[in-house]
Amino acid sequence: MAQQTGTSSGHPIAVLNVRTLPLPILPTPPNNPPKQQDIVPRLPSQSPLLFAAKKEKNISFETLAQALGREEVAVAAIFYGQAQASPEDVTNLARVLGLSEEVLLATELTHFPDRGRQMEMPPKEPLVYRLFEIVQNYGYAYKAVMNEKFGDGIMSAISFSTKVEREEDEKGVWCKITLRGKW
Amino acid sequence: MAQQTGTSSGHPIAVLNVRTLPLPILPTPPNNPPKQQDIVPRLPSQSPLLFAAKKEKNISFETLAQALGREEVAVAAIFYGQAQASPEDVTNLARVLGLSEEVLLATELTHFPDRGRQMEMPPKEPLVYRLFEIVQNYGYAYKAVMNEKFGDGIMSAISFSTKVEREEDEKGVWCKITLRGKW
Amino acid sequence: MAQQTGTSSGHPIAVLNVRTLPLPILPTPPNNPPKQQDIVPRLPSQSPLLFAAKKEKNISFETLAQALGREEVAVAAIFYGQAQASPEDVTNLARVLGLSEEVLLATELTHFPDRGRQMEMPPKEPLVYRLFEIVQNYGYAYKAVMNEKFGDGIMSAISFSTKVEREEDEKGVWCKITLRGKW
Amino acid sequence: MAQQTGTSSGHPIAVLNVRTLPLPILPTPPNNPPKQQDIVPRLPSQSPLLFAAKKEKNISFETLAQALGREEVAVAAIFYGQAQASPEDVTNLARVLGLSEEVLLATELTHFPDRGRQMEMPPKEPLVYRLFEIVQNYGYAYKAVMNEKFGDGIMSAISFSTKVEREEDEKGVWCKITLRGKW
Amino acid sequence: MAQQTGTSSGHPIAVLNVRTLPLPILPTPPNNPPKQQDIVPRLPSQSPLLFAAKKEKNISFETLAQALGREEVAVAAIFYGQAQASPEDVTNLARVLGLSEEVLLATELTHFPDRGRQMEMPPKEPLVYRLFEIVQNYGYAYKAVMNEKFGDGIMSAISFSTKVEREEDEKGVWCKITLRGKW
Amino acid sequence: MAQQTGTSSGHPIAVLNVRTLPLPILPTPPNNPPKQQDIVPRLPSQSPLLFAAKKEKNISFETLAQALGREEVAVAAIFYGQAQASPEDVTNLARVLGLSEEVLLATELTHFPDRGRQMEMPPKEPLVYRLFEIVQNYGYAYKAVMNEKFGDGIMSAISFSTKVEREEDEKGVWCKITLRGKW
Amino acid sequence: MAQQTGTSSGHPIAVLNVRTLPLPILPTPPNNPPKQQDIVPRLPSQSPLLFAAKKEKNISFETLAQALGREEVAVAAIFYGQAQASPEDVTNLARVLGLSEEVLLATELTHFPDRGRQMEMPPKEPLVYRLFEIVQNYGYAYKAVMNEKFGDGIMSAISFSTKVEREEDEKGVWCKITLRGKW
Amino acid sequence: MAQQTGTSSGHPIAVLNVRTLPLPILPTPPNNPPKQQDIVPRLPSQSPLLFAAKKEKNISFETLAQALGREEVAVAAIFYGQAQASPEDVTNLARVLGLSEEVLLATELTHFPDRGRQMEMPPKEPLVYRLFEIVQNYGYAYKAVMNEKFGDGIMSAISFSTKVEREEDEKGVWCKITLRGKW
Amino acid sequence: MAQQTGTSSGHPIAVLNVRTLPLPILPTPPNNPPKQQDIVPRLPSQSPLLFAAKKEKNISFETLAQALGREEVAVAAIFYGQAQASPEDVTNLARVLGLSEEVLLATELTHFPDRGRQMEMPPKEPLVYRLFEIVQNYGYAYKAVMNEKFGDGIMSAISFSTKVEREEDEKGVWCKITLRGKW
Amino acid sequence: MAQQTGTSSGHPIAVLNVRTLPLPILPTPPNNPPKQQDIVPRLPSQSPLLFAAKKEKNISFETLAQALGREEVAVAAIFYGQAQASPEDVTNLARVLGLSEEVLLATELTHFPDRGRQMEMPPKEPLVYRLFEIVQNYGYAYKAVMNEKFGDGIMSAISFSTKVEREEDEKGVWCKITLRGKW
Repeated sequence: MAQQTGTSSGHPIAVLNVRTLPLPILPTPPNNPPKQQDIVPRLPSQSPLLFAAKKEKNISFETLAQALGREEVAVAAIFYGQAQASPEDVTNLARVLGLSEEVLLATELTHFPDRGRQMEMPPKEPLVYRLFEIVQNYGYAYKAVMNEKFGDGIMSAISFSTKVEREEDEKGVWCKITLRGKW
Repeated sequence: MAQQTGTSSGHPIAVLNVRTLPLPILPTPPNNPPKQQDIVPRLPSQSPLLFAAKKEKNISFETLAQALGREEVAVAAIFYGQAQASPEDVTNLARVLGLSEEVLLATELTHFPDRGRQMEMPPKEPLVYRLFEIVQNYGYAYKAVMNEKFGDGIMSAISFSTKVEREEDEKGVWCKITLRGKW
Repeated sequence: MAQQTGTSSGHPIAVLNVRTLPLPILPTPPNNPPKQQDIVPRLPSQSPLLFAAKKEKNISFETLAQALGREEVAVAAIFYGQAQASPEDVTNLARVLGLSEEVLLATELTHFPDRGRQMEMPPKEPLVYRLFEIVQNYGYAYKAVMNEKFGDGIMSAISFSTKVEREEDEKGVWCKITLRGKW
Repeated sequence: MAQQTGTSSGHPIAVLNVRTLPLPILPTPPNNPPKQQDIVPRLPSQSPLLFAAKKEKNISFETLAQALGREEVAVAAIFYGQAQASPEDVTNLARVLGLSEEVLLATELTHFPDRGRQMEMPPKEPLVYRLFEIVQNYGYAYKAVMNEKFGDGIMSAISFSTKVEREEDEKGVWCKITLRGKW
Repeated sequence: MAQQTGTSSGHPIAVLNVRTLPLPILPTPPNNPPKQQDIVPRLPSQSPLLFAAKKEKNISFETLAQALGREEVAVAAIFYGQAQASPEDVTNLARVLGLSEEVLLATELTHFPDRGRQMEMPPKEPLVYRLFEIVQNYGYAYKAVMNEKFGDGIMSAISFSTKVEREEDEKGVWCKITLRGKW
Repeated sequence: MAQQTGTSSGHPIAVLNVRTLPLPILPTPPNNPPKQQDIVPRLPSQSPLLFAAKKEKNISFETLAQALGREEVAVAAIFYGQAQASPEDVTNLARVLGLSEEVLLATELTHFPDRGRQMEMPPKEPLVYRLFEIVQNYGYAYKAVMNEKFGDGIMSAISFSTKVEREEDEKGVWCKITLRGKW
Repeated sequence: MAQQTGTSSGHPIAVLNVRTLPLPILPTPPNNPPKQQDIVPRLPSQSPLLFAAKKEKNISFETLAQALGREEVAVAAIFYGQAQASPEDVTNLARVLGLSEEVLLATELTHFPDRGRQMEMPPKEPLVYRLFEIVQNYGYAYKAVMNEKFGDGIMSAISFSTKVEREEDEKGVWCKITLRGKW
Repeated sequence: MAQQTGTSSGHPIAVLNVRTLPLPILPTPPNNPPKQQDIVPRLPSQSPLLFAAKKEKNISFETLAQALGREEVAVAAIFYGQAQASPEDVTNLARVLGLSEEVLLATELTHFPDRGRQMEMPPKEPLVYRLFEIVQNYGYAYKAVMNEKFGDGIMSAISFSTKVEREEDEKGVWCKITLRGKW
Repeated sequence: MAQQTGTSSGHPIAVLNVRTLPLPILPTPPNNPPKQQDIVPRLPSQSPLLFAAKKEKNISFETLAQALGREEVAVAAIFYGQAQASPEDVTNLARVLGLSEEVLLATELTHFPDRGRQMEMPPKEPLVYRLFEIVQNYGYAYKAVMNEKFGDGIMSAISFSTKVEREEDEKGVWCKITLRGKW
Repeated sequence: MAQQTGTSSGHPIAVLNVRTLPLPILPTPPNNPPKQQDIVPRLPSQSPLLFAAKKEKNISFETLAQALGREEVAVAAIFYGQAQASPEDVTNLARVLGLSEEVLLATELTHFPDRGRQMEMPPKEPLVYRLFEIVQNYGYAYKAVMNEKFGDGIMSAISFSTKVEREEDEKGVWCKITLRGKW
């Protein structure tokens, strides 16, 4: 069956930006080495592979999430090496992305993730900074409300699920993030 | 009508921990000045006042949220000086907390908030650190999914609303946070 | 002639938030010392004085700027101790704010400013952070365009003027900042 | 039609400084690898390509801005990977710079920008530091004036436009920067 | 029954070092204000009270641990405001330390702890630095061994218990720390 | 005798994640250099060798610990270059991992370890952060209890042993870490 | 003989800005404590005393330098606690500033200076930042030239002298700083 | 005419230390890649070229300064990429160093310098640290004296000149640095 | 017997610089609070007391070291709260300094020292910075030599002794520091 | 005459750990590039060369020190690029290490050292951290004692000598470091 390509929103899909310029294209600066944004060295070996296939096939995280039966953010986290893929995830990823399972198993996809290397804090990326700013400004408000609801303790940031939804009303477009963690 | 006291969860209410020991109680160390946790100097003048009255009346943020018609986290953010109170909020706070409106208007409650002073980043408080860790680990996953859903842009961290809910299933107690921001 | 009070926009005026609660108002926590937001210790001695009179008289920076014949941001910078007031500024400030010139001259208002203490960088205040983000994201773009227009050199950040204007069109309200510095 | 080369100011155009020395030129240190200023690894793959063509053709941002129908700073931001190019921008860039559209589309030029990686803060570059210093010294003055004009809120640093202009009067040459952001 | 005083090891008990010099003792430097080590402002209001009584009564954490039926480190954590005391803990502390329960309940002893403020990291105190160094040097070794034993996940640092024991053999005296956390 | 493979817990073994993608697998991005997680450049030359053989043979640290007669964490520390291997350790490692002793002696395995390079502090890896958090929150509690038990001094972080054990009770699975250091 | 007052340049003298507002002047905010710029806590006890007398007498560093027979910067360094005063300096300072020698000797004026506490680095004060920027940009150029002139070694920053001079030519006013240190 | 070689002081000339070992010399460690001190990646492409020729010809900055008609420190700053070379500088450098002008113009020698990347602050190099220490200890003393001589303002660190001189008296050898900047 | 006063070198003794100006001396700035160098809040309560008596009696560390039978640096460390005083030390200090033992025992003199709070690192004090620089520059040289002499391990920085000696030869005056620590 | 090999203590010699694995040994991970501990890029070009020969010949710093007539630490500092080698040192090093003088002169061995790049501060290496800790804890004690012995001034960290000695008594093995610097 034909794979759904592109996003349902009409926006382009997210890619990793790792493809470097083939040298023959621009003959003049001969010593010009391939350039990469510096997120790449912070990612495990499967990330460029998965993103390259995602770009090749023009598949969104929405489509991948349906194929894997997981939330979109969780699938994106697998792409960035922040979550461990199960054997079923590997089978599904191989099928949807047109990669061999053997190749995927040779990467760190099923290893214990070495989390937290992806990003410098405070984040410089404006979109991610806004999430950081929420923690900075509302951190104690969350704590106070949580303590009243749950007593002393913490919400797990490891065994938790999260999703992003799009809502639209007369005031415009809204982005809704839901976090759900074990207390 | 009698005010609802305590929390519906049975846990104690959240307070600011600013009350210092009356000196007569402990005569021995005479030069022992009042101690305060160092969040207090980072808060505006209404915070100790509001929290003292909240403690005195034993009122939860849940009860306050109902009285003000706002989300609990928004009310807690007003208490911590991270959100601006409207005239109606002042009237309601004065009524519920048994404070005079004049006193409240003399504080910075209705001023333009000087946000962001409340917390050092990275947060040392374990509960708040978990929220920080979510941004650190999932920041790019959120960005990728949001870009696919909304295109280039950001979710506002200023005009946004948020709430905390308690869910319970056979696996235990879950804390659910919802963030909803203008794109 | 009666002084114009409030802002022309209808928003409240900006104040310093230094007024602490008179102790008699809240008798219960007797050792509760006056609270202050931590910008105050970073400001020179005239700042609380000027802001207190500004609040007392309910005068906007717009009105003050007209009275002093200077840009609004420059007047605000005088209030925050980032610019030196001339003798004429002192006379005008004293008249408009109802303060004695002698008192103003006893402050650091006419001293050489000890600039740069006002703010921690990166700024945590969201509005100021947006300005910081502009420098972070567009810094080299500005440099490239300036170098092409002016050659090697710098735009002075000391002898420069700046203003803020409000514009409105069908897309909404726009904030326009102009910076003009000696090359 | 012949392309306008050089700048209208007579200053040289801004380039990226990525061209490394062809090894044959200096035979003595044989192991001398190509050198690069450390801004390059912080830039996406299109930056060296665009700047190399800009240098080759000796085209200023002023000329490019006219060809693309955008502000100069916005065009420079595209070159530094801080802004997303539209399909029309790609067509125009390809035409003016003599590059194939296919090559440009193979870069990250039309991807979602990963903003904020370009620069360490505080900036060490003196010209950019001056802009940083303006935020440091006038941050709260801007906030106070903006709050009086617009109420509580922020000026967007994402959907905003900016330009640099040259003014000359009897006191010398002035650099004028205008920032205009959605409130 | 007479309270056991001192430690079983013969070493002096640990105190908080907050007692300041009574001014009459040293008349010469009249403006000499009370000095305090800077851990005190990082602690909640019960800490000086509890440590003062502990010193007054010369009671070790070992004795307190027996009286409260908790581990010594947990009791010390209560003294430093890193753990929440239960009502039974308050009753026991009041009895053993000769304090009124009412006074203890007026402190933050039973509040939700605002953890993490006690210490700057990296720690400068040599003994605590050694623990930090263990995490620095063996962090990945622990992770590897734990992942092999427990799979992906984390050991909770919140719901966990810990104790310190003294062991002696022919090679000398050994300090044994046990950490036990929920996986 | 056949070597025990895998872990006794059934979880996969811990590996270093250094294997990069063989280029022929994904022909499209030809300039795509091998990716590595950034822990690798922080490790000595034996680490990739040992981990590669460990992966090849599918041997757990538990099995290695038995073969070397050392604690699991100590063996993992040898793999990460945080501990010096004795000649016997080299012989045993060579035998169990199927490597030649000569190769192992050519690495830094028996050199004086250059400790402390393995990890940035504060750790970003969530599991290791929890250990860091224990030191942050309980540091002074440990110091107070240790001082009472041992007097002034420190617990050595160099000549010390440590182990990780798995315990299970009705409340779930517990991870128990024991540290034992010379006083 | 009448003391020379003011500066020869006509600019006001430099003062420390420590004088706080006498409370009676502004009755309204009664809890308004004296404000100080935060350089004061970084200075030794003689600094406010010396600067207060300097302000009272309206004496410039130029005049003081003549009276003490030392360079202006050295005298200013004594005022800021960065240089040790000799007994002759004390006698001269007492005479010129109208202070008793006994009072001056009771300060830290003749103690061993605890240097380096005066300023956070990088400096935020724009004028001082410019000096910092010179070191940042020309540091290696100085080292290269010095090494060629003096061989390996360093210029002492402790036993060195320095002065500031004013020069004027057709291009404007120039500030000339001379540093002279033992090699 | 024969070029003056070496320094007039008899000390060796300053070089960049970029020459790496020719691999044939030391056959044993075959994978031993060329080493470089980490200042090199912070420098523009002309720096290794200029320094290599300077070393080849054994020419001091003193000789270069005479050939270019500029101060030694300015010439060294050109070598380190902190100053822009004029066309005349290029001609002179090519002649003295025996390089082709075409090669020099292919470098960034005449580009707008990207200043400030050369050095981490605080500097670790002892000689440069001493200059940093002067700013740290005497910063406010300079500001006070400059304000008295020039009023409010700053000394430019961009359009300024500087030189290093050697002086000798009975107390030994002195290094004299002169800075002269536009006010 | 008369106590030896002053130092044998003829230099003044080292004092703590905590004595603040008696207010009556300088009537003009009435709100001028006592000033202190910021080392004082980092020291325990006995430090000002001991240094005040040392100043009063004009006693050097050399004399104190003889009276206590300890090294000078160890005595100075006791004064700065970095070492624990034994009961004999207390008796000797009381006798030599003319203080009552009871007063000394009421301080933290015999408590477990909370080490490491005395100084920010890197040190800004030039003399202490030089010691820091030795560690920075020679750290690995020490490690290499120590490893060759002692094998793997560390030199204790806790149970170690140290002294400072003065040597003079034809090249001038030399300061000799000896560190001796348990391996 | 046969060169003395190994150390007199029987411990292995210190080496640089730069030798990477010859690729043929481990055929499986073909893209596995040579690994290096990250001290190497911080060292000048002679360091790997000198250490490789030292390892090849199995020569200790003790033996080298005798051959060069210098202290062991000074020789180690030459190996780490922290000290400048004289022509005699080069001759001696070439002879003892079996290297050609020409090769050694082609390195930076006789250049002006670019000191301070070798180590991040605070040091993470436990042995070096202990030296750092001594400065942190005893810094002011050293300053006080030195000021009493030498007056105001500093001990040079540049023209100074240092040595490490081994002492043994009934309490065990002691490491003795002597620092001797010009005052």
